[in-house]
Amino acid sequence: MTSETRTVIFTPSGRRGQVEAGTTVLEAARQLGVDLESVCGGRGICSKCQIEPQFGTHSKHGITVSEAAISGWNATEARYDEKRGLKQGRRLGCQAQILGDLVVDVPEESQLHRQVVRKAADTRVIHMDPATRLYHVEVAEPDMHEPSGDLQRLTEALSEQWGIGAVETPLSVMTRLQPILRKGAFRVTVAVHDDGDAPARLLDLWPGLYDGGLYGLAIDLGSTTIAAHLCDLTTGNVIASGGRMNPQIRYGEDLMSRVSYVMMNPGGDAKMTAAVRTAISELTVELASEAGIESQTIVECVIVANPVMHHLLLGIDPLELGQAPFALATSDALRLAVRALEITGVNAEARAYLLPCIAGHVGADAAAVALSEAPGEQDELTLIVDVGTNAEILLGDRNGVLACSSPTGPAFEGAQISAGQRAAPGAIEAVRIDPVTREPRFRVIGEERWSDEPGFDANVTGICGSGIIEVVAEMRQAGIVDASGLIGSAEQVGSDRVIAEGRTHAYVLHEKDGRQIRVTQGDIRAIQLAKSALYAGARLLMDERGVDRVSRVVLAGAFGAHISPKHALILGMIPDVPLEQVTSAGNAAGTGARIALLNRSARAEIEATVGQIRKVETAIEPRFQEHFVAANALPHAVDTFPELRAITSLPNVSYGAGGGEGERPRRRRRKS
Amino acid sequence: MTSETRTVIFTPSGRRGQVEAGTTVLEAARQLGVDLESVCGGRGICSKCQIEPQFGTHSKHGITVSEAAISGWNATEARYDEKRGLKQGRRLGCQAQILGDLVVDVPEESQLHRQVVRKAADTRVIHMDPATRLYHVEVAEPDMHEPSGDLQRLTEALSEQWGIGAVETPLSVMTRLQPILRKGAFRVTVAVHDDGDAPARLLDLWPGLYDGGLYGLAIDLGSTTIAAHLCDLTTGNVIASGGRMNPQIRYGEDLMSRVSYVMMNPGGDAKMTAAVRTAISELTVELASEAGIESQTIVECVIVANPVMHHLLLGIDPLELGQAPFALATSDALRLAVRALEITGVNAEARAYLLPCIAGHVGADAAAVALSEAPGEQDELTLIVDVGTNAEILLGDRNGVLACSSPTGPAFEGAQISAGQRAAPGAIEAVRIDPVTREPRFRVIGEERWSDEPGFDANVTGICGSGIIEVVAEMRQAGIVDASGLIGSAEQVGSDRVIAEGRTHAYVLHEKDGRQIRVTQGDIRAIQLAKSALYAGARLLMDERGVDRVSRVVLAGAFGAHISPKHALILGMIPDVPLEQVTSAGNAAGTGARIALLNRSARAEIEATVGQIRKVETAIEPRFQEHFVAANALPHAVDTFPELRAITSLPNVSYGAGGGEGERPRRRRRKS
Repeated sequence: MTSETRTVIFTPSGRRGQVEAGTTVLEAARQLGVDLESVCGGRGICSKCQIEPQFGTHSKHGITVSEAAISGWNATEARYDEKRGLKQGRRLGCQAQILGDLVVDVPEESQLHRQVVRKAADTRVIHMDPATRLYHVEVAEPDMHEPSGDLQRLTEALSEQWGIGAVETPLSVMTRLQPILRKGAFRVTVAVHDDGDAPARLLDLWPGLYDGGLYGLAIDLGSTTIAAHLCDLTTGNVIASGGRMNPQIRYGEDLMSRVSYVMMNPGGDAKMTAAVRTAISELTVELASEAGIESQTIVECVIVANPVMHHLLLGIDPLELGQAPFALATSDALRLAVRALEITGVNAEARAYLLPCIAGHVGADAAAVALSEAPGEQDELTLIVDVGTNAEILLGDRNGVLACSSPTGPAFEGAQISAGQRAAPGAIEAVRIDPVTREPRFRVIGEERWSDEPGFDANVTGICGSGIIEVVAEMRQAGIVDASGLIGSAEQVGSDRVIAEGRTHAYVLHEKDGRQIRVTQGDIRAIQLAKSALYAGARLLMDERGVDRVSRVVLAGAFGAHISPKHALILGMIPDVPLEQVTSAGNAAGTGARIALLNRSARAEIEATVGQIRKVETAIEPRFQEHFVAANALPHAVDTFPELRAITSLPNVSYGAGGGEGERPRRRRRKS
Repeated sequence: MTSETRTVIFTPSGRRGQVEAGTTVLEAARQLGVDLESVCGGRGICSKCQIEPQFGTHSKHGITVSEAAISGWNATEARYDEKRGLKQGRRLGCQAQILGDLVVDVPEESQLHRQVVRKAADTRVIHMDPATRLYHVEVAEPDMHEPSGDLQRLTEALSEQWGIGAVETPLSVMTRLQPILRKGAFRVTVAVHDDGDAPARLLDLWPGLYDGGLYGLAIDLGSTTIAAHLCDLTTGNVIASGGRMNPQIRYGEDLMSRVSYVMMNPGGDAKMTAAVRTAISELTVELASEAGIESQTIVECVIVANPVMHHLLLGIDPLELGQAPFALATSDALRLAVRALEITGVNAEARAYLLPCIAGHVGADAAAVALSEAPGEQDELTLIVDVGTNAEILLGDRNGVLACSSPTGPAFEGAQISAGQRAAPGAIEAVRIDPVTREPRFRVIGEERWSDEPGFDANVTGICGSGIIEVVAEMRQAGIVDASGLIGSAEQVGSDRVIAEGRTHAYVLHEKDGRQIRVTQGDIRAIQLAKSALYAGARLLMDERGVDRVSRVVLAGAFGAHISPKHALILGMIPDVPLEQVTSAGNAAGTGARIALLNRSARAEIEATVGQIRKVETAIEPRFQEHFVAANALPHAVDTFPELRAITSLPNVSYGAGGGEGERPRRRRRKS
């Protein structure tokens, strides 16, 4: 039957072609470019290439498949089934031969480029194409008459059996090579890292067939928190997630205070570098332990961070980022050994990939958001706001993308707020205030009921970021706060929940056992500063683009997911759009890191994209200051927010007359 | 004058061409492919491109050069001359413009590919083409509107100003980049390593113009001694040389005893690895201190070693090298960070290059000898013997090269010899014995006079390797020792310098203050074993090649340089050739290391050569044992050594009859 051909159709890809009768299904898949996994290279030991022949009539394809179209079980398959069990209807693609016209289904788990569908609202799909993969090879045994190193015979085998060309081998692998080769009787499984840019690299090896999985970390290194996902590099699944405070916080809450710390304390950068590296190492150990995997199996880390965090992680003094012209030491994506970052708890040869920085104030985290949200592929003009201590803002569509960052400070994260706290059990996360009675009700983290529902009995400890946004917006909507941000007196507001605090007022949101949770005038001011910076950054990009409106707003950042769009609009954090056009992208920077971890071509993609993004430097743009001042009002001194007004009305109160703050009259004039 | 052309001729290269009038000499040199050095890239600050215009009539070239053929001094040249002085007749090639037909001489020190002529008998020339070079670049200053990292602007400058493409930058350079760039007002000198195989790498940088030199180490890591040359990577000069004992000696004198040590003592390899790394680090510090250079300026190490030393240096357990099939863990040339070898005292990013190993018993040291002595380029069949604890033997000519190694043991280096010692002041290094009186005279290291000359008054401490070879050969020639290696009795020999030692005899070479320096029967046996191994290895290669004679013998190894060819022939260490065909190559392995250090294309060359060499494994070749036994006699039991007999006669004595060693009769039968 050597020269006869058979028709073979693979589903779900629909690939179709002619192969010689007697060809194995795995070989046919390779010939036709069908994604069919194999670690052992067709030796019938890894079981990754399982397929399902589809017997019967396939009118869609115009062929009928008989039982005789595929060879019967051979000894290898029978042995495999006996030892490890083969699911009903399944065959090993490397053993089963195509004898007649055949339709073959490749189940999800046998597909080389699996797709991982992100959870929740997301529809973006990650195509699995990890940089580090396992290969099983049979290595020629040493021969005195043709002396060559064990390593050279191993790399020859990789080339012959897997088509992998030049491979660099680190010393730590060379030193372990000989005993492992002999333990596996010259059959070994190697982990090869090849992200398409750097030379391929042999990261590790195991005797015989290793099937214990390879893992990678996607790390979002923020000013306040460090978040990490531990991912299976074969399935793409997140097997553990976690986070912790960035320990650098003790040297300064926001970026600029950390840069100042370095300026004032020579060597302070080294302390912060060590602190963050230790924190990441500890987090890594925690996640590996939670997932029950060996640290040796973690072979890659993808890290995203803003420029100051990025430089401090690398051990670069961030001094230049604190002063014009805000020069990055290095802006390109970085490929280096995790070891060089002194991060432990991973494979000794694990590789790190840091996404490129966009500009001195727009970091690799913003690049990750761009990778995840792909503003440059949108039909509608989309504003993406990654809310954090420093906000990264992207504006774009198919015609181009603009980026800037804005120093919002940590108020949105509950810092600098009198009753502020991290999002943790006991924190108020949602607030409603009755516009008539000015009485509040709220919900706290860890308790499903609202505070006015029967049985509510939470220990209320403070207000987290989303709670503070909601309470300020609700206070504005209930007329407790006026457009300039002033809290009226109890008399003016008509509520004894308003109490005097020196020359200003505060609103008592909760009281129990004599302890009050208040929203003070200072809290309102802090939120005003933060939201003005955010809005001004967005507005600057709109100016650059020459538009007054955007079509969509995407709130990114772990925190962005918890922001109520309506309350954000009432505060004027974001430009006015129809409420349904405000969506959340979750932790888009973290998702971008995960995409770059699981798909190596995404790395080249974002590196090219970043080169195309137009950067706007808020710090030197005179209009930023102008936009910032105008954005101080709630929602805004100039922009009328018609979409917001269509769904809600804001009371036209003004508490400035009785107050003592000098700037108020000027602001009110602007508003009028 | 824009479109007029001028004839320019460069000497000594003789390159000739037309250039546009007004072209600088440096630019003309580049256009015509003339080697003219420049570090600053033509900015008139490095002074490397000095040239000498040759005025007057050049009948050979058919042109006359007038004073007006070259532009007068400009401000840059005048300032340079004032500050640093320009030699009479010299001009800066980057400033002087060609205005008329011109002959330009490029002095030796301005040539990019300088030639370094090796000293002494050697005629081989090393073309300077180091892998690491300095480049002065002007980097664009940061621009907020076009944000890119300082590193990216630096690499762009390297590409634009020097044509250097992709450059990898290690983290340690990134972290120092920003302050250095600013200190140099965005002009820096960078050291770029590019040996043609690995990606180019930015090893270090200095503010402004750095002119302090770059250095490299050529290290010959032997079983007994470690020798190193510290070389100037610009001139090729050796600026310091030194050596020390290999501290692994405490774990075993020869290779196999060190492998045994590892087998018997788990973790013993790590101890030996640490010991040799520390020794190299200390030697490096010593050499840098002697030469008065900063350790940071040492940017490369080339290391040659036999396979066991090579593996132990790398931290690879040499176990497999101690048993058939003698598999190397890795045989190819290695490029890695010196840091990975835990060798200190060099630049943090210094690169190491290890020559390839030829086979399990024929190491990178033999490859270095092949690079230095180039057996494959010889017209005459040449035997190259690198004498050490393990002898590497190469046999070849243009028709091909064969290689093997032979376990001679350390006897030739004075070890295992009763009065043996290292070659140091006080050691007997040359011996003559009067064939009539059997009275010796000798010369010791550190004293020019022979022992029988008036005024000789050295403190004689022992016999070094060359001395032991000479004394045994002289004893054979004077009839004190017979062909089987037996020392006759005082009566048989007719000299009261022969004394009884149990059942054997010893020859008293020197006596002072009651302390005798003797040559014992055991010493003779040790030399016989060593020389038999050497000869048997050479003979095996001759068998493989199908010849009975070779045309030339080259003695390599630091020790080989001190061996008297005539005495070596009398002992039968080497095959019989006319005396004048035995030459010394000095430390050929060390020279090979130096060649690979100073000329990067030599690396590709030796890597290709090693692939062509045919390897012979002495340990499994049955004829080796046969050759070894036959070579036990002095000079040989079977081979007649006609060339030797033509210049000297060896007395036909035999002391076996009265002795008691059982093996003697058998040997004598073989001889008869």
